[in-house]
Amino acid sequence: MSDRTYLDWNATAPLRTAARSATLAALDATGNPSSVHAEGRAARRLIEEARERVAALVAAEPRNVVFTSGGTEANMLALTPASARARLLVSAIEHPSVLAGGRFQAAAVERLPVNGSGQIDLSALERRVAVSGDKAQASQMLVSLMLANNETGVVQPISQVARLVHAAGFLLHVDAVQAVGRISCDINALGADLLTVSGHKIGAPKGVGALIRRDAALAIADPLIKGGGQERGARAGTENVAGIAGFGAAAAAALADLAADRERMIALRDRLEARLEAASPEIVIFGAETERVPNTTLFSMPGMKAETAIIAFDLEGVAVSSGAACSSGKVQPSHVLAAMGVPPPLARGAIRVSLGPTTTEFEIDRFIDAWITVSGALVKGSQGIAA
Amino acid sequence: MSDRTYLDWNATAPLRTAARSATLAALDATGNPSSVHAEGRAARRLIEEARERVAALVAAEPRNVVFTSGGTEANMLALTPASARARLLVSAIEHPSVLAGGRFQAAAVERLPVNGSGQIDLSALERRVAVSGDKAQASQMLVSLMLANNETGVVQPISQVARLVHAAGFLLHVDAVQAVGRISCDINALGADLLTVSGHKIGAPKGVGALIRRDAALAIADPLIKGGGQERGARAGTENVAGIAGFGAAAAAALADLAADRERMIALRDRLEARLEAASPEIVIFGAETERVPNTTLFSMPGMKAETAIIAFDLEGVAVSSGAACSSGKVQPSHVLAAMGVPPPLARGAIRVSLGPTTTEFEIDRFIDAWITVSGALVKGSQGIAA
Repeated sequence: MSDRTYLDWNATAPLRTAARSATLAALDATGNPSSVHAEGRAARRLIEEARERVAALVAAEPRNVVFTSGGTEANMLALTPASARARLLVSAIEHPSVLAGGRFQAAAVERLPVNGSGQIDLSALERRVAVSGDKAQASQMLVSLMLANNETGVVQPISQVARLVHAAGFLLHVDAVQAVGRISCDINALGADLLTVSGHKIGAPKGVGALIRRDAALAIADPLIKGGGQERGARAGTENVAGIAGFGAAAAAALADLAADRERMIALRDRLEARLEAASPEIVIFGAETERVPNTTLFSMPGMKAETAIIAFDLEGVAVSSGAACSSGKVQPSHVLAAMGVPPPLARGAIRVSLGPTTTEFEIDRFIDAWITVSGALVKGSQGIAA
Repeated sequence: MSDRTYLDWNATAPLRTAARSATLAALDATGNPSSVHAEGRAARRLIEEARERVAALVAAEPRNVVFTSGGTEANMLALTPASARARLLVSAIEHPSVLAGGRFQAAAVERLPVNGSGQIDLSALERRVAVSGDKAQASQMLVSLMLANNETGVVQPISQVARLVHAAGFLLHVDAVQAVGRISCDINALGADLLTVSGHKIGAPKGVGALIRRDAALAIADPLIKGGGQERGARAGTENVAGIAGFGAAAAAALADLAADRERMIALRDRLEARLEAASPEIVIFGAETERVPNTTLFSMPGMKAETAIIAFDLEGVAVSSGAACSSGKVQPSHVLAAMGVPPPLARGAIRVSLGPTTTEFEIDRFIDAWITVSGALVKGSQGIAA
């Protein structure tokens, strides 16, 4: 598919060169990491080296990294009630794996609103936090907020949230899946007690992620997958050694290239948005007025249906998406845009363009050419049908 | 490590050639299987092709295959209570991931004994099943029994068990991780309602497995990992596409080569055991009097400590194990041999040699040479210390 233009990096990123090499080398290394012989010890070393690299990406300690099968499993593990009385507060724009509430009962999950820019309503959080005067009860509460939204790219004020949450004695879980490799994600600077990262969003193979603790004192009391001592008892089962090795290599590359990748992606996105607005002045770019990760543009043209546009783009050789990759195959209105108060007709036209470290100016220009074709045809087409 | 002799296939198998190719091709295929564009659809096809191949390995329907991150997760998902009253019956020789009881409360788990050959005590099962006269209560019970034991290789009389279990209105889960690719595993012939398989035991990458249902009517009511519609809602999270593609290719190869691999492994194991008994007539081979998978020999020499022998073998370039790969790193007496009534001093000396489709006569002979060196040195060594 070398004639294709892939601009759906928030759904999944192409494999990084360094991740590919590390994955292949690990695939060829026989040995169960739990075996004591040379083959087993070699597999164990691959995992522990990757653990150091993934920890470094978020400035955590290696021993606080628990490898999982991906971001969704890490979120599921993070969202574990500490007791039967525990409650979970999530923002209305979280990923479905957080909105599902993990192992909390549905009645124990509360949603916090966001403002029109897609950022959490800090005063609402502050009010909710103030309600819980009893510290003993407060310690039974968990707040889960994403660092960057997968649809809009809007960055949340996590360190402010952490201060409010910690002052009340709550714990904070941060889903950083769409932020790592794009902006700085220092677990201490953020103040996250638990942090979720995913491998395939930064160029590792699909099927690997991690839940990372800020402090080893926060025990993983109730593992999701039991029956083996792997991951210091926090996650049983023979490790995905090749995926983990690839994740480590991708994390090291993402950290080393962060500043340069960020500059390049900002320049490309600025070009994209300037040309888009020049071609179609009526478009709306969501969250443009606030801080976003440097690779994401979510926009809508009044009257256009995203699902039709995505297919037309695909036929033009351009891969983009209508918000999140939809696992059910059904087209549903974005819960993110609904929470931001975007009117349904505008939300239904939302197209997400997400870039990556190897995206080129040529690809941006190809996207714009395709947009001119697609938007022209769809506007003409709908007029034709109406006529 | 080309000068190494790897005889620990029950811990993990080297990557099969066909699985390697399929994994690499899938690693290079960008695209989230949930995306609607060409890249997404290509990734989706890789998964669905693999689903057909894994289903074929156990003669199941593709739609009844749920891909997981491995055998342990599949066991965890299978062992889900249907209600608060549900009970779980497991044999005493199950893998730790089954003994842990999945999502059953510890008080709801009962263990069934095995006989001295390592097979389940059918009369004990029959008696336990007869106790439950009330069919309504019976439907709340799940029996979990492995098809082949990971330490001894002993094959369980699953179809007899299935008849007893089904007559009482129970459901049967079968952990077939150590059986697939070694003996025929037809889910209908076995009568398993749920079947666990693991990729890396048959030459796929580590980190992928499946829970397979016999009948689509048996719903996965409470997924372990939630928050996405993947795997028809039974298992959320972006799929491990490369691992799954490798699993499919390994399953197809394992099925195609089953008869030939089996003949070869039986001949090699017969050679191994004959030469071993000739060299050390005092050894005991566990389960030799009953049906075993063709690749596994678990033996012990009175007075020898397995952990010392494993290290000595490793120094001789031979990778074998002391029973199961021990995820905790601690040496513990085998619960399997304890359940078979093997005296602790003999159990502590148990060494597992497990072969695979590419094992050669030369490797068997190298193992025997190493055994003669190791056993001679250890016996001399212990005499020296005693003297």
